[in-house]
Amino acid sequence: MSQVARHWYFNKRPTGEIEHDTLVLRSEPVPELQDGEFLFRSIYMSLDATNRVWMSDWDTYMEPLPVGARMLGFLIGEVVKSRHPDFPVGSLATGLSTWSDYIVTDGEGFSPFVSLQGVSLADAFGTLAVAGPTAYVGLLEIGKAKPGDTVVVTAAAGAVGALVGQIAKIHGCRVIGIAGSREKCQWLTEDLGFDAAINYREEDVLEGLRREAPDGIDVHFENVGGEFLDAGLTLMNNYGRVVICGLISTYNATGPVPGPYMFRNVIMKRLVIEGFVILDYAAHFATYHEKLAEWMRSGQLKYRIHMEEGLDGALDALRLLYTGGNNGKLMVRIGAVPN
Amino acid sequence: MSQVARHWYFNKRPTGEIEHDTLVLRSEPVPELQDGEFLFRSIYMSLDATNRVWMSDWDTYMEPLPVGARMLGFLIGEVVKSRHPDFPVGSLATGLSTWSDYIVTDGEGFSPFVSLQGVSLADAFGTLAVAGPTAYVGLLEIGKAKPGDTVVVTAAAGAVGALVGQIAKIHGCRVIGIAGSREKCQWLTEDLGFDAAINYREEDVLEGLRREAPDGIDVHFENVGGEFLDAGLTLMNNYGRVVICGLISTYNATGPVPGPYMFRNVIMKRLVIEGFVILDYAAHFATYHEKLAEWMRSGQLKYRIHMEEGLDGALDALRLLYTGGNNGKLMVRIGAVPN
Repeated sequence: MSQVARHWYFNKRPTGEIEHDTLVLRSEPVPELQDGEFLFRSIYMSLDATNRVWMSDWDTYMEPLPVGARMLGFLIGEVVKSRHPDFPVGSLATGLSTWSDYIVTDGEGFSPFVSLQGVSLADAFGTLAVAGPTAYVGLLEIGKAKPGDTVVVTAAAGAVGALVGQIAKIHGCRVIGIAGSREKCQWLTEDLGFDAAINYREEDVLEGLRREAPDGIDVHFENVGGEFLDAGLTLMNNYGRVVICGLISTYNATGPVPGPYMFRNVIMKRLVIEGFVILDYAAHFATYHEKLAEWMRSGQLKYRIHMEEGLDGALDALRLLYTGGNNGKLMVRIGAVPN
Repeated sequence: MSQVARHWYFNKRPTGEIEHDTLVLRSEPVPELQDGEFLFRSIYMSLDATNRVWMSDWDTYMEPLPVGARMLGFLIGEVVKSRHPDFPVGSLATGLSTWSDYIVTDGEGFSPFVSLQGVSLADAFGTLAVAGPTAYVGLLEIGKAKPGDTVVVTAAAGAVGALVGQIAKIHGCRVIGIAGSREKCQWLTEDLGFDAAINYREEDVLEGLRREAPDGIDVHFENVGGEFLDAGLTLMNNYGRVVICGLISTYNATGPVPGPYMFRNVIMKRLVIEGFVILDYAAHFATYHEKLAEWMRSGQLKYRIHMEEGLDGALDALRLLYTGGNNGKLMVRIGAVPN
């Protein structure tokens, strides 16, 4: 009797928000392994704002996901059968693959996972694997933040934002976070050491930033877009840098989305606005991981993981991201961590 | 009997387009020179899109011009009386001063003008003084254009645009210009060597760019903004550079102006969007002038000057810029060139 695997399939291209029938879960027999293949058992899956981008038919940094294909995501798991020399049974692997509990693969998109001493598998995968390098590259290489800079970060209690703010503090910046609840703001200032946090559900972001950044903004790290980006652009200092990491507020749009109304400040304040996609930096991940793990072990980087249970709930879980319903790095536990 | 000078005064802050009473021309006696002052007689005045920016009460790269002040502009002229050691009688001076035929000044904003061999005063001032360095810095230092790049430039028949395209050709780029008449497009391709020109009054710019830039755009040089910028952003190649030199289509706006609708491509295509103000580069102008003059003398840089006559007509002349009514670098002849 053959083993059964479950896969989420892309059922219908969403025109706005992701709906309950955007993806469908199907069970299928697991095929026999061929030479050069292995059977991957998923442990954790990362849910990321960019998942929605892959569902659109926009011209993006990846080919649009065709309707009828398996949904894509970042996973970590265990090799449970193998006819592939680089992925022996019992080893861990991570990569961009599909929303599935079992996957037969030739290894494309996967790489062996190297454990980081003193960091749990969930933390290493959820916080370090993608969010960590994203925060690091975005703040330091794209944003070129330096000691004394005033840094603003949006979605500051999110997986990337919380790390951006803390890395900025480690580098001697003044850090202001924008987040969507009192509890999140309190976490940022009291636990993570942010200098200030603005709750966008309770006050006007532009007014809040005027108060908390009286000398202007040097680096604006954008995860959201829309009015937050406009508020930042309004208060940028001359020669400031605006890092565009995400524009989650626009990914569910059904029509054309206006760019920032204060776009003219790109000239008036001589700004650099730069976007990036962390996949472009994959070759350097080991370096970032080492540095980030060091800060984690020394307690300089705190983080939290919002873990949802089971592959079945993955679609509902993803929808949390676009309403700010998650509290920390959003992940799904698909299977048990091996002993 | 004292000599009389005429000055344009800022009479009323415009809410949209510049109007006939935005500035008023007044005659005043010329005051006696004090020690450290000289009397400047204007020869040419440059009219620039940014003049409208100075009239707004936006937070820009300069203090907003107060209502009641003399209107500011770039001038070249002759020192006709002097009690200033650096500006002897008979010498030429250039700088940011006021829309006037005679000016008593302590020299602030002025510098002595160094003639460029083989280049007339009008060409040196009109083409090289500001437009030349703007094109040079924008294309090569901000845009980092390199051989083989596809470069798009808007307002391509304007003072800056025409130079951008030709400097790009000198550097081995493929160049596509966007301009507003058949005659301008013909000038670009037949006289200036542009590879293609798109007449935005006759065809959709996005469609035109798709045809003329089938391999995408590497450097987009923006003088206009609005739909032209959106068309460029739509077709940018990965890691492309978008130079924001001007956003003339937005300077007369009476309300908030949406930024580019394709702003998301900053991430999807990993773009750098960078604005600049040429005044920041003033210390390096001599270097740019030398290089630009060399290209002019060798016939590699062609240009044309749209000369309006007389200080009286300066306000009407300025309005031409915002309708594309000028044909070449817009200048006003205020007084005669000395023998």
